[in-house]
Amino acid sequence: MVMTGTRIFQQVPRLLFGSGVVSRLNELLPPVGGGRLFVVDSVLEAQNVLDRLPIDDGDEVEWFPASEHEPSTDQVDQLRDRIAGRTGGLPTAVVGVGGGSTMDVAKAVSVMLTNEGPSSQYQGWDLLRRPGVFKVGVPTLSGSGAEASRTAVLLGPEKKFGINSDHSMFNAVVLDSSLISGVPADQRFHSGMDCFIHCVESLQGSMINELSKSFASQGLELCTRVFLDGGSDDELMTASYMGGVSIVNSEVG
Amino acid sequence: MVMTGTRIFQQVPRLLFGSGVVSRLNELLPPVGGGRLFVVDSVLEAQNVLDRLPIDDGDEVEWFPASEHEPSTDQVDQLRDRIAGRTGGLPTAVVGVGGGSTMDVAKAVSVMLTNEGPSSQYQGWDLLRRPGVFKVGVPTLSGSGAEASRTAVLLGPEKKFGINSDHSMFNAVVLDSSLISGVPADQRFHSGMDCFIHCVESLQGSMINELSKSFASQGLELCTRVFLDGGSDDELMTASYMGGVSIVNSEVG
Repeated sequence: MVMTGTRIFQQVPRLLFGSGVVSRLNELLPPVGGGRLFVVDSVLEAQNVLDRLPIDDGDEVEWFPASEHEPSTDQVDQLRDRIAGRTGGLPTAVVGVGGGSTMDVAKAVSVMLTNEGPSSQYQGWDLLRRPGVFKVGVPTLSGSGAEASRTAVLLGPEKKFGINSDHSMFNAVVLDSSLISGVPADQRFHSGMDCFIHCVESLQGSMINELSKSFASQGLELCTRVFLDGGSDDELMTASYMGGVSIVNSEVG
Repeated sequence: MVMTGTRIFQQVPRLLFGSGVVSRLNELLPPVGGGRLFVVDSVLEAQNVLDRLPIDDGDEVEWFPASEHEPSTDQVDQLRDRIAGRTGGLPTAVVGVGGGSTMDVAKAVSVMLTNEGPSSQYQGWDLLRRPGVFKVGVPTLSGSGAEASRTAVLLGPEKKFGINSDHSMFNAVVLDSSLISGVPADQRFHSGMDCFIHCVESLQGSMINELSKSFASQGLELCTRVFLDGGSDDELMTASYMGGVSIVNSEVG
């Protein structure tokens, strides 16, 4: 079978993996001083997550209520307008710290800082004209696969839909299992099922190729081990990443 | 265990996968007209490989005798000097078409076009000062994992050693199984064993993390299927890629 219609397979080029590696976040970022924007899920405020992040004087932290309700295009536009309106120019990087919704907001803000107009006009496929600000994903909850995907799902005025573009993928990702170790069991399971479903859906997709299938198979195996056989948080983070890669590269996602 | 000493996990950001996709190589390259350099294993000349590649008038093809003997730093320096000495400036891209040695030469030429002096002085870890010319790998033989790795192994005046750098990784890769379908069985097996060994070595490395392990496990499973159970060329290409990712990201390679 000649498969010449498949999309280009996209991957985050740089990842830091391991318990505790979030302390090395600066290795993935432009130098401090230029002012980085940290978009952090507001539920993490009570967990002193800022103590884990290398925040510099010139950086800005935005507590985003991503866990309260699904992020909207309006919220993204307001945040973008406020950041773009500051003196001192654009941030040198946007760092999303949280679950899938927070990471999606970080991706969306990154591209909306360089693409004009309301974010709702970019909900769809390949509508962004310009690359965004350098962006890094730091999941504190595993399963969504947002750390690996090129989509930023937002509630728009008319539809809930993703901004899907090469420009909306992270430039780097930190997979630090110590950040998910305190997630309550029911939330861990619920979010992990997202990954399970991604892998199963990918494997059932008619257009899946052997490369995407390998990510889906490995993600599914890890997911099964995590939830049926006491697998580790490192395995769950890897499963989520692999599931995200498979769904975005299998013509399903 | 806190694993804060691991290196940043590197991946090729864009891949085209599938039988026949080499016809879409231009989607991964800078626009035609600037003059791209194709470094092609000279054994492929007899196989009319150029008919498969989107060669433009402004492009240059270099038949490189990578299969005759292991490529040397001298050969790379000579090729670099000749290309850099042309009128018209540097090529907009270097495309390596062949097995691991040819891909390594393409990676080396790419970085030597922008880094001064003999290539032997860059054999080692992280010695390159500047990014290379945009480069794409097109394997016509699977197993080496060179398509996924940050090393370009060359015979130097004193040692056989790799140029290992973030700058010596491909910017994109084409994994087209139709290009390996004509490889003789003994060569296919011999080269595939390279992948098998990469995966086993990665899995035995003491510093391996769960992410690298997943690539190694999946690569090993595919390799075993290919050689013991009549697995497909798509599976072999995926195995080689996964083995390459695992070896470069497991502190072994």
